[in-house]
Amino acid sequence: MNRESFAAGERLVSPAYVRQGCEARRSHEHLIRLLLEKGKCPENGWDESTLELFLHELAIMDSNNFLGNCGVGEREGRVASALVARRHYRFIHGIGRSGDISAVQPKAAGSSLLNKITNSLVLDIIKLAGVHTVANCFVVPMATGMSLTLCFLTLRHKRPKAKYIIWPRIDQKSCFKSMITAGFEPVVIENVLEGDELRTDLKAVEAKVQELGPDYILCIHSTTSCFAPRVPDRLEELAVICANYGIPHIVNNAYGVQSSKCMHLIQQGARVGRIDAFVQSLDKNFMVPVGGAIIAGFNDSFIQEISKMYPGRASASPSLDVLITLLSLGSNGYKKLLKERKEMFSYLSNQIKKLSEAYNERLLHIKLVNLSSFRVVPLGSVQTVSGYTFRGFMSHTNNYPCAYLNAASAIGMKMQDVDLFIKRLDKCLKAVRKEQSKESDDNYDKTEDVDIEEMALKPDNVLLDTYQDASS
Amino acid sequence: MNRESFAAGERLVSPAYVRQGCEARRSHEHLIRLLLEKGKCPENGWDESTLELFLHELAIMDSNNFLGNCGVGEREGRVASALVARRHYRFIHGIGRSGDISAVQPKAAGSSLLNKITNSLVLDIIKLAGVHTVANCFVVPMATGMSLTLCFLTLRHKRPKAKYIIWPRIDQKSCFKSMITAGFEPVVIENVLEGDELRTDLKAVEAKVQELGPDYILCIHSTTSCFAPRVPDRLEELAVICANYGIPHIVNNAYGVQSSKCMHLIQQGARVGRIDAFVQSLDKNFMVPVGGAIIAGFNDSFIQEISKMYPGRASASPSLDVLITLLSLGSNGYKKLLKERKEMFSYLSNQIKKLSEAYNERLLHIKLVNLSSFRVVPLGSVQTVSGYTFRGFMSHTNNYPCAYLNAASAIGMKMQDVDLFIKRLDKCLKAVRKEQSKESDDNYDKTEDVDIEEMALKPDNVLLDTYQDASS
Amino acid sequence: MNRESFAAGERLVSPAYVRQGCEARRSHEHLIRLLLEKGKCPENGWDESTLELFLHELAIMDSNNFLGNCGVGEREGRVASALVARRHYRFIHGIGRSGDISAVQPKAAGSSLLNKITNSLVLDIIKLAGVHTVANCFVVPMATGMSLTLCFLTLRHKRPKAKYIIWPRIDQKSCFKSMITAGFEPVVIENVLEGDELRTDLKAVEAKVQELGPDYILCIHSTTSCFAPRVPDRLEELAVICANYGIPHIVNNAYGVQSSKCMHLIQQGARVGRIDAFVQSLDKNFMVPVGGAIIAGFNDSFIQEISKMYPGRASASPSLDVLITLLSLGSNGYKKLLKERKEMFSYLSNQIKKLSEAYNERLLHIKLVNLSSFRVVPLGSVQTVSGYTFRGFMSHTNNYPCAYLNAASAIGMKMQDVDLFIKRLDKCLKAVRKEQSKESDDNYDKTEDVDIEEMALKPDNVLLDTYQDASS
Amino acid sequence: MNRESFAAGERLVSPAYVRQGCEARRSHEHLIRLLLEKGKCPENGWDESTLELFLHELAIMDSNNFLGNCGVGEREGRVASALVARRHYRFIHGIGRSGDISAVQPKAAGSSLLNKITNSLVLDIIKLAGVHTVANCFVVPMATGMSLTLCFLTLRHKRPKAKYIIWPRIDQKSCFKSMITAGFEPVVIENVLEGDELRTDLKAVEAKVQELGPDYILCIHSTTSCFAPRVPDRLEELAVICANYGIPHIVNNAYGVQSSKCMHLIQQGARVGRIDAFVQSLDKNFMVPVGGAIIAGFNDSFIQEISKMYPGRASASPSLDVLITLLSLGSNGYKKLLKERKEMFSYLSNQIKKLSEAYNERLLHIKLVNLSSFRVVPLGSVQTVSGYTFRGFMSHTNNYPCAYLNAASAIGMKMQDVDLFIKRLDKCLKAVRKEQSKESDDNYDKTEDVDIEEMALKPDNVLLDTYQDASS
Repeated sequence: MNRESFAAGERLVSPAYVRQGCEARRSHEHLIRLLLEKGKCPENGWDESTLELFLHELAIMDSNNFLGNCGVGEREGRVASALVARRHYRFIHGIGRSGDISAVQPKAAGSSLLNKITNSLVLDIIKLAGVHTVANCFVVPMATGMSLTLCFLTLRHKRPKAKYIIWPRIDQKSCFKSMITAGFEPVVIENVLEGDELRTDLKAVEAKVQELGPDYILCIHSTTSCFAPRVPDRLEELAVICANYGIPHIVNNAYGVQSSKCMHLIQQGARVGRIDAFVQSLDKNFMVPVGGAIIAGFNDSFIQEISKMYPGRASASPSLDVLITLLSLGSNGYKKLLKERKEMFSYLSNQIKKLSEAYNERLLHIKLVNLSSFRVVPLGSVQTVSGYTFRGFMSHTNNYPCAYLNAASAIGMKMQDVDLFIKRLDKCLKAVRKEQSKESDDNYDKTEDVDIEEMALKPDNVLLDTYQDASS
Repeated sequence: MNRESFAAGERLVSPAYVRQGCEARRSHEHLIRLLLEKGKCPENGWDESTLELFLHELAIMDSNNFLGNCGVGEREGRVASALVARRHYRFIHGIGRSGDISAVQPKAAGSSLLNKITNSLVLDIIKLAGVHTVANCFVVPMATGMSLTLCFLTLRHKRPKAKYIIWPRIDQKSCFKSMITAGFEPVVIENVLEGDELRTDLKAVEAKVQELGPDYILCIHSTTSCFAPRVPDRLEELAVICANYGIPHIVNNAYGVQSSKCMHLIQQGARVGRIDAFVQSLDKNFMVPVGGAIIAGFNDSFIQEISKMYPGRASASPSLDVLITLLSLGSNGYKKLLKERKEMFSYLSNQIKKLSEAYNERLLHIKLVNLSSFRVVPLGSVQTVSGYTFRGFMSHTNNYPCAYLNAASAIGMKMQDVDLFIKRLDKCLKAVRKEQSKESDDNYDKTEDVDIEEMALKPDNVLLDTYQDASS
Repeated sequence: MNRESFAAGERLVSPAYVRQGCEARRSHEHLIRLLLEKGKCPENGWDESTLELFLHELAIMDSNNFLGNCGVGEREGRVASALVARRHYRFIHGIGRSGDISAVQPKAAGSSLLNKITNSLVLDIIKLAGVHTVANCFVVPMATGMSLTLCFLTLRHKRPKAKYIIWPRIDQKSCFKSMITAGFEPVVIENVLEGDELRTDLKAVEAKVQELGPDYILCIHSTTSCFAPRVPDRLEELAVICANYGIPHIVNNAYGVQSSKCMHLIQQGARVGRIDAFVQSLDKNFMVPVGGAIIAGFNDSFIQEISKMYPGRASASPSLDVLITLLSLGSNGYKKLLKERKEMFSYLSNQIKKLSEAYNERLLHIKLVNLSSFRVVPLGSVQTVSGYTFRGFMSHTNNYPCAYLNAASAIGMKMQDVDLFIKRLDKCLKAVRKEQSKESDDNYDKTEDVDIEEMALKPDNVLLDTYQDASS
Repeated sequence: MNRESFAAGERLVSPAYVRQGCEARRSHEHLIRLLLEKGKCPENGWDESTLELFLHELAIMDSNNFLGNCGVGEREGRVASALVARRHYRFIHGIGRSGDISAVQPKAAGSSLLNKITNSLVLDIIKLAGVHTVANCFVVPMATGMSLTLCFLTLRHKRPKAKYIIWPRIDQKSCFKSMITAGFEPVVIENVLEGDELRTDLKAVEAKVQELGPDYILCIHSTTSCFAPRVPDRLEELAVICANYGIPHIVNNAYGVQSSKCMHLIQQGARVGRIDAFVQSLDKNFMVPVGGAIIAGFNDSFIQEISKMYPGRASASPSLDVLITLLSLGSNGYKKLLKERKEMFSYLSNQIKKLSEAYNERLLHIKLVNLSSFRVVPLGSVQTVSGYTFRGFMSHTNNYPCAYLNAASAIGMKMQDVDLFIKRLDKCLKAVRKEQSKESDDNYDKTEDVDIEEMALKPDNVLLDTYQDASS
């Protein structure tokens, strides 16, 4: 409503009340203006009313929502289903242009603004989460694996001789496949066991670099977020190797934004050595639906190169989700989630510890080593991915000394989730023990796994990341 | 978004595109401004985008949507469920005040505007539909019956001696009960049969007025919209009687807005005689959910008196529904619906005629007398309503010569509705005929009714307004 | 999805996963079944997923949502606007029939179920809130005042001689007008001052009953919920008088469901004497939009009589709101709200006490007498309502000794609301004091009122129930 | 609602009505069952009621919607914002697994079903649209360009020596970049002018194949849908060359599903020669938001290979959009849209013809050659894309004889769009002519372009695909 509308309103109801409403409107507008001017995540989350007003205002700036519009191009943002238009808040044009996924579209000023603001907000949050010197980032409507692929494809143009990617082993299929899909040969560096932890074998990395020759190596592809007992890669040292040998460095930070430790490692790596890009999942870090990632880096122009490598326009849906989420939470809300995650980790660790003491720890083969997550990891599993064979798959090493359980303290987990999990695990372990007292000791491991996994399939049981799933 | 926001937007994406978006916004605002300034139904329906922007703008003018609001009164518009808030577009305060259902609320400028504009739009539509000299009207969140009651209760204060309401018989329970509920004694005037039609017995009306004495009569309560073979009351003549004897005249125009004939009668009645108020259903005339009515009249101050008689605030829900509907349709859309209804009436009449010729008309007892609607009306039904006994209930007279079928050509009916109805009626009649050839002729009427009514209960059959329902 | 659909699903994805999903569905269905079988508010609130599934399932039972439906009646539940259909979850038929607002509609099994279940849930909550022996109740889509009118109109038929309603004074317009609208003469019984409290003058009530004669009295119309310093009426004693003289007793319990004290009084009144019906607002007690009320009583058949007095179908919207709200909250959620309200009352009282001590109490004229609410109440206000003149209007008595502030601790109020209110009140009092030091003492009261009320109009100030509003 | 719930419902309202509602439910279920069993697009579109019921049923099969679920994995489908959950109908898990974008997820049976059914429906529509022998297809949440890249990346693993992609020139950046991004060198084959049309230079293609050697060629990358005067590639002949030389053939069919001609060419190409995959945009063919594509082919296992090449889970959003759209339209609705598009093409052609006759055709340089679309195409534009320079960019050839206008008759275009376009073009041409009569003839071309393009930026003007945009 503009000035004339308010004036007309004053003639219909009391001017004092309309003026009051008009002032109220200004307070919403003020928040919107601050956002557009600063490009930062507001401290306090917006209420739905401001949020929807903002989305509505953006949407009517897109040409498909122009009144009296006639479209005779082939990309007019026509929508057949009102349900579909509504669920996208009438943003139909997607984001980006053929030249650049971050570029502005002439027919969609609103969608373009949405895209710019989202990237700006996400950059703000990455800084807040610990990577203070990040230079640029953008949301891409592809999950982490495909986003890593895009990074590798961009590097290809800069390193015509490169055939290999050096990759400290992490048993997760997508990141392995991201290299295969990009057309490179992964050079797997086995981890070393230090105490209970599996850590980067730096000597093996450097030896491989020298063996293959830096020019033939596309990049080192390291990982921060991972399931215990594998711990985050030694990012600082890898970054130094990359700097020394002139090799790019891409970091898989899939669910690392929620972990101050992972973010700190990236910040440090960039400070002392070389990190070209780090990639994080939207869903795992921002509690939105699966399907988006953030590609970030310390060199503005390299990040732009990646964004220019994406051929064509792209879905605005993941950007919209993360925008809504961050504006709803505010930076304070997001910080609170990060804080709660840490607390839940301590709580979960303690509860597991108590439970393992109540049972026979050796019996359970639960290894509480600075762990951050839980799932059933049996011994001796062999998995072939894109022609490569991994022994001891899921344990990140060929021969981990024992089978164990993993469970993750991910962002958004509540105390009641932990309590319910512990209760069900307890029930499950009781059943295992009873079974064992009946049977001989030989087929022990088998029995345990089967029981726990079968339970996981029932909706009233804990949903463990079981064998089949964990590999995905 | 205000000027500063747009300026900030221009720095983020191309100024040209933002300006284009800003201009686009202006075209939405222009429509809103026109609405507020003219208070008339726009000719062309608004698209959802403008409509929701408008509702959003109004809602943030209500104090429950103020940012940083703190409420320590007892009526702060707090909502426990987000689903509920959302479905009401965050209008929580209802409409009106204790003093007047049309009054402005200090805490809810937006809801107050909504109320004013809705009443203004509805007034515009009533004029457009044929009652050009209507002076005022308001939407009340009660169905037709209770709204009639409110009119009678308002008249009570002006006519302290009055005990009776003169009412030409129409067999519909709600309007009869509206008089009982208001505490008056209905004086039923039986209709006279003219040809096939049942019409107002004017002589009986005037005789009753003289017999009871004008001061003891609260009002004449006439009816426009009704099922054939009863036709609309002789409104002009009744209005003249009212004028002559100084008796108020309340017209039940339940589903008459959609009928140019009913509206014309009201216009004429007011021109030549006296009509104090006419009441119409929102759902039947505007295709919205059940629960609202419009009370309209030719004397501004009397309509205001009625609106002041409603004690307390009231639901804004019916007003919101009719506002959304009229803005979506535009006056052109509404006119189109009126036109289509007329066409469907002709089409339906023709199809029924063909069908009745195909079968034996006597057999069917279908009487095609200027009919406007279809349902099963048996002979000899007796119904007691609030202590009054009606013989021949549903046929509007004690002894209609035959049983017949009624079906309504109501606003929104489509050709495919008629076709499907005819197909099913055909099927039904075939079954009846087969049944009759097997059985004796005595229990003929019974058989027919049962068959058709039973079919009506099945979802794949025509939904006739069957006996039980039609009386409601 | 039925068995065959699940079987087909199993062929498309893994049977184990589909079975798991199918079991999950069963857990939603189980909740729905419990609700329908027990008719009680579930202890734990439902999540949106179950709630919307339930509403969806009900809606498709209404004939307007039948596939392949053809409608040729005049009430087919057609909706012109998809937005309108959607916001009503496709419930279009309203509730009730001409005979009875609680009756079942043949064309709308789903809406009818919705109506029955809502009434059943609400009855459960009334019991839970303290009126354990309530026999029946129903939701009516009219606010408290009009609902009281309906009660009085129902009583009229049972008490043909009655002309008066005995009403211990409470300065709120709607409840006063409810008697006028129904056509009765309110007999105002002034309150008596006991300490700081205004209480029912029982002797005056009984004297009036004897003076007018019981047969000429329609009912005693008492009030529970009210602003301090008026306290709830002496319900037990009034109920005993009603029983002794055979006079009906209607209780205005507008926002009393949230107060254990009000509910206890009703329960006690019914135990020792006579209460025919008690009426409560939906919005004030259940945090839904304005527009509905609950009429409840201890005699099933009298409540049915009232429900039969409503002429015609009615809006389902208030019923839908309260159903959604109660299913979302669960009885535990509602109990928690009640508990929090009590805590907030204590907190608010303490904070006000501190503030009044910080300032000069006499200066402020704040009287902390078992208070439950705050608003600006000046001295000497005179108000005429429907021809009756009230001196000292808003203070419930002709001459309250001082002006004072009122603020309500209503359901849903948060600690931050109180804190913000206290902060703003503090600021406001500071300004008043500064003003006073400048001016003479004469126009003191005036100054204070104006200041506080003007502030109330600004969105960044506390929204007090100011003079104009409080009377509505 | 299950059987017990219905039984409970029968006790609350009339059994007959509940049974009727229960039968009505069955008719919805029947549609769902048919869909799951047949996997085909229903002939008649579903109404929203069935559609939302179906989506709701699917969603509650996903583990994030299990009641009493506790999640301690890192991918539990937690959502921070209720708005986000709602707009995705609570499908949070995305589609696919690390191994395969078409694979089933253990934690998301509902999302998995959604994915399978969508792919099945889309396959059905591709057949219906003319490619009857298509073997398999899948929706991928990436736009056409990136989807082509994925095809090329998949082929890389089968053709280790390949470095080149043979590409008959089409001036659209995304498809050119799709080859660059995949790391291949595009070998551009200039088109030949035949009459007014630009057509595939088959001799040049075959010569290039022989020159480079089949093993060094990844594939031929042809195009069906394009702007006049370039016409679809000679697919049959290209397919034969591919078959003869053992070279894969990838077809860019971006907006070709809506064109029976394009679909016919693909069908024929596959019949007589070799087509490995054809890729089409979701938004351009199905009127959904930008961001998805369909990869389809004639060899089931090759399509599976591509789907397995996508590393990780992916957004379900484009699949959900196309599912909603196709179920809403039904195959009849989609066919109707295709039919209307053809009609609009004729209508648009005729109107343009009339207009060009009214003006001086030579003056306008409009060339009406079997045209299918309109935009401003100037002469002599030079564009560099990823290091490659294109002369005469946008005209698909180095030296097209004249500048011209293009406009597309895309699916969903309405007669009023055409009329408005013609009206505005007329206005625009009038202005150009006036300008020309004032100025000298030299700078003629310049003037025209500028005028038309500037107009295109104004919301009340036709939105032509102007120079900047058309290249995206």
